[in-house]
Amino acid sequence: MAITYDDVPIRPANLAGPAPEFPWPDGKRAAMMLSFDIDAETAVTSKDPSHFEKLVSMSYGGYEARVGLPKVLELLHELNLKATFFTTGWVADAYPAMVESLLKDGHEIGHHGYHHLLPDPGSPHIESELSKGFEALARHGVRPIGYRAPYGESCNELRTALKREGMLYSSSWRDDVRPYRQVLPDGTSGVVEIPPSSCYDDWMHGMSTRFGPRPIFPKEHVLSMWKDELDEIRAWGAMVGTVLHPLVSGRPMRLRLLRNLLQYTLECRDVWIATGEQIARHFESCEAAAELTKTQKDSAA
Amino acid sequence: MAITYDDVPIRPANLAGPAPEFPWPDGKRAAMMLSFDIDAETAVTSKDPSHFEKLVSMSYGGYEARVGLPKVLELLHELNLKATFFTTGWVADAYPAMVESLLKDGHEIGHHGYHHLLPDPGSPHIESELSKGFEALARHGVRPIGYRAPYGESCNELRTALKREGMLYSSSWRDDVRPYRQVLPDGTSGVVEIPPSSCYDDWMHGMSTRFGPRPIFPKEHVLSMWKDELDEIRAWGAMVGTVLHPLVSGRPMRLRLLRNLLQYTLECRDVWIATGEQIARHFESCEAAAELTKTQKDSAA
Amino acid sequence: MAITYDDVPIRPANLAGPAPEFPWPDGKRAAMMLSFDIDAETAVTSKDPSHFEKLVSMSYGGYEARVGLPKVLELLHELNLKATFFTTGWVADAYPAMVESLLKDGHEIGHHGYHHLLPDPGSPHIESELSKGFEALARHGVRPIGYRAPYGESCNELRTALKREGMLYSSSWRDDVRPYRQVLPDGTSGVVEIPPSSCYDDWMHGMSTRFGPRPIFPKEHVLSMWKDELDEIRAWGAMVGTVLHPLVSGRPMRLRLLRNLLQYTLECRDVWIATGEQIARHFESCEAAAELTKTQKDSAA
Amino acid sequence: MAITYDDVPIRPANLAGPAPEFPWPDGKRAAMMLSFDIDAETAVTSKDPSHFEKLVSMSYGGYEARVGLPKVLELLHELNLKATFFTTGWVADAYPAMVESLLKDGHEIGHHGYHHLLPDPGSPHIESELSKGFEALARHGVRPIGYRAPYGESCNELRTALKREGMLYSSSWRDDVRPYRQVLPDGTSGVVEIPPSSCYDDWMHGMSTRFGPRPIFPKEHVLSMWKDELDEIRAWGAMVGTVLHPLVSGRPMRLRLLRNLLQYTLECRDVWIATGEQIARHFESCEAAAELTKTQKDSAA
Repeated sequence: MAITYDDVPIRPANLAGPAPEFPWPDGKRAAMMLSFDIDAETAVTSKDPSHFEKLVSMSYGGYEARVGLPKVLELLHELNLKATFFTTGWVADAYPAMVESLLKDGHEIGHHGYHHLLPDPGSPHIESELSKGFEALARHGVRPIGYRAPYGESCNELRTALKREGMLYSSSWRDDVRPYRQVLPDGTSGVVEIPPSSCYDDWMHGMSTRFGPRPIFPKEHVLSMWKDELDEIRAWGAMVGTVLHPLVSGRPMRLRLLRNLLQYTLECRDVWIATGEQIARHFESCEAAAELTKTQKDSAA
Repeated sequence: MAITYDDVPIRPANLAGPAPEFPWPDGKRAAMMLSFDIDAETAVTSKDPSHFEKLVSMSYGGYEARVGLPKVLELLHELNLKATFFTTGWVADAYPAMVESLLKDGHEIGHHGYHHLLPDPGSPHIESELSKGFEALARHGVRPIGYRAPYGESCNELRTALKREGMLYSSSWRDDVRPYRQVLPDGTSGVVEIPPSSCYDDWMHGMSTRFGPRPIFPKEHVLSMWKDELDEIRAWGAMVGTVLHPLVSGRPMRLRLLRNLLQYTLECRDVWIATGEQIARHFESCEAAAELTKTQKDSAA
Repeated sequence: MAITYDDVPIRPANLAGPAPEFPWPDGKRAAMMLSFDIDAETAVTSKDPSHFEKLVSMSYGGYEARVGLPKVLELLHELNLKATFFTTGWVADAYPAMVESLLKDGHEIGHHGYHHLLPDPGSPHIESELSKGFEALARHGVRPIGYRAPYGESCNELRTALKREGMLYSSSWRDDVRPYRQVLPDGTSGVVEIPPSSCYDDWMHGMSTRFGPRPIFPKEHVLSMWKDELDEIRAWGAMVGTVLHPLVSGRPMRLRLLRNLLQYTLECRDVWIATGEQIARHFESCEAAAELTKTQKDSAA
Repeated sequence: MAITYDDVPIRPANLAGPAPEFPWPDGKRAAMMLSFDIDAETAVTSKDPSHFEKLVSMSYGGYEARVGLPKVLELLHELNLKATFFTTGWVADAYPAMVESLLKDGHEIGHHGYHHLLPDPGSPHIESELSKGFEALARHGVRPIGYRAPYGESCNELRTALKREGMLYSSSWRDDVRPYRQVLPDGTSGVVEIPPSSCYDDWMHGMSTRFGPRPIFPKEHVLSMWKDELDEIRAWGAMVGTVLHPLVSGRPMRLRLLRNLLQYTLECRDVWIATGEQIARHFESCEAAAELTKTQKDSAA
């Protein structure tokens, strides 16, 4: 099907209304959804399965299991923080100890596909990535309620499937600074969307390979951005969502950087650091309360 | 038609003479054309209309309507500044509330194509992008007098059409630090050109996607450049033109940066911050006065 | 052979167990494998042999012989440090004086291929690059015991061949912060792997060409990263491995940077700066001691 | 002719011996060849002649004539410095006033091709670019003695032609920090090579377009590198060569940066800032003196 400019709909691509400005719990002024993506080797094979034989390319992913995740978990334990880890099914199957370490420390595990395949519209992998991801996590007794799209893309087929599967939330859209309720193509409600912030994607400034054009930036560069973003969000009373990867942030100097960000955020004292599940459930209870108020007003009128 | 090196004309690509050094109004030493491009989702679909189904890619554009533009308008209101917003026709049709909010606050609306399609020489879209853009803005009662080329390209067909349509000015060429009168291929006068400054294009240092190679740079990096450029232009008595996008500068940390730039510019006290229309009309009245002086001298001689 | 996602093995790409946490010698807290790659013109011809006629492109490589290596050797002599130089066979044949200067100063020479050809899985060059590299070094009386993969890639065929050739160690994998024993596909032990650190690859932040997208970064940028990485590694009791190139780090400003890094590392006083051979032999003796202890415990039980 | 790895010669690509360490004149410790490339619109058309119709792309080049060069000349006049301007023949023909302004201020004009076409080995344009460039400069009474390769590439055909044309020097190779005598493929002497320094190519850190991946870097970034390079070169008693472009360094903030570099260099007091011709003639007289000494020693022996 050739799509021409005459076919482009004359309406927002996102049908959801404005994000409601619900207050954060415990008098906090702003929120941070603390979340990581666990890709390990699927960060490499998801581009081409034959990369599995390129052993040094693969080793960038393998760092996550050998060093990166243990170091990140150590830091979270030290700071007494819980986070969401969106984990590919392949990782759950190939590295069961990684999933066990997440569960032991009480972190949330989210769905992140099986082979980390890009869910472009029309991709033949959308349903299989979803079902195989659920099955792999189920082998650890986990039924995830949150989902983050591999490579940060999504489409209507995928988000309709998330609703059908009973998921509570997605964390993929880049169009807001507060959670909102997705609206599906048929006009019905979808899952809760908790938008992540591109500037907290550690891949952007902390990962480099000889063949890629991305340089690595030092702490002065990244912390300045991370603090500016957080400070402005605090002034707005809104939220940020991180997109961290232990294969990046578990590298020695990046862990120092993350430690710095988390310490700064804790020192602010007005930021609620929470998992995706906590934020989604908070959103749902605010939504229900608002609905109740609206119903009461309507019946009083 | 194959063009070879023997076909390259031996003359400047731009036939216009030197930009006249007219003084700025009210004793100001320099000027800043404060302008934004409003692309929203057309920033994505302009590369390929089928991208409309890539919902996360689209959400980078959708941020403009949901958060970016409201935040930028709030800042301009706070600082009591008026700006020009070059708006694609698609945005005017798909997001009428965005255009209404611009009009309510008294900002200028300029023409920026309909689907934000690149006006490369020979493009089949040049006339339709122009006419559909006018029609969309007309539905809001707007007849724009300024134009900025989508993707910052232009050609003779396009600038000849701008003249025919009675436009007052264009803001696309990158070859001067003062406004000048365009000269068309047939030697007649074209519209006024108000050259924007690449270094004030916020996309260059403030937008990043996983697949693109551009990193984001922090305030120390960008403010240093923005101030240096402005300070030198003040010394020259010339002007800068911004190419900002609310989908970039409306992001939390980028808004802080823009606030910083505008506060610095205001504190300089010698910079005339103006819309494209104000600068173009000022140019035309200086031009008319110079013409009159010349005629008087000629007749006195 | 088409490889599909169903063919991707459900297991770590690297079969080696966790890196043992052996202590460093002389009570040092951490280690730095100080190593350089000597590519000279093969950095250019390895992409396409016809580049040999592109004389300015080639001259970036030729800088290594004319200026870069002598300057690096002068610095190492000044600081009384020994390093490993992974040298391509072509360099050994085309620039015998370079190899002689390395030997005269007592540095280790490692294997780095012959034409610096990428050892992608299935490459027809793997065996010939290896044998021709050995032959070229043999003409200088050198039988190397360490190997670093050109372009930092590897595969099972290559690392199996390294074992067969009696090599002691490889320094290519990016998945750990301590040396470990490789495990080959058939489950037997391979060579010792001493993982280098991407952030100490000087190419990433210190080399730029007009056609490449990489900018050069100043000392503030690079030293900040280099120190952060080292400081965190010191806290971990682990190691870093450098991937320096005299054609980069021998450029005037980069040599200042390297001098700065080495001086800082020396001032730390708790970092063992060593060649690949020293680290590999230390690993082997710790491994043997651990094996002995294990055997004694087993027989005592 | 397919070139394989078996065809790669086993010898340095550059046959010249080590650069002689001649002293600089007037007791100076180091030298800076101050040189600019004047490309104007040929920076754009040299990639594809049909770009001539892309008027905004062309305007990046046109900035050089309208603003960039006048501003650079003003700065050099202010600091009382002479420089070499490698000027394409097209510029000399299309903008005669640019060449006249260079001559009026007493700067050296060098050869830089006609359409700025890349002199890759085998290019059909090598001879015509050379002859047309000479003819265009001759129309201004100029017979250049220095040459810089467009896009910084060269080959044997080109440098042999430079010798045949009686040129004194080339400034293109990137493999040394001192001038040296080129050796041609037949073993005879070629022109003097004065190697420029990549880090002083202002395009690398000061030019950005929406479609290119290069960001612009602020003064803190670039000055740090420029000073480090110069300071180390001063310690070595060697030289740097600039590759500046008025279409980059004539932009407001870049001119500030260049002013800063030149002021710093002047304040060092030990750096000889010279044109290509001055450095080449100094080299030749040192070379002749060394030859004489050698002859005298030989005859005394």
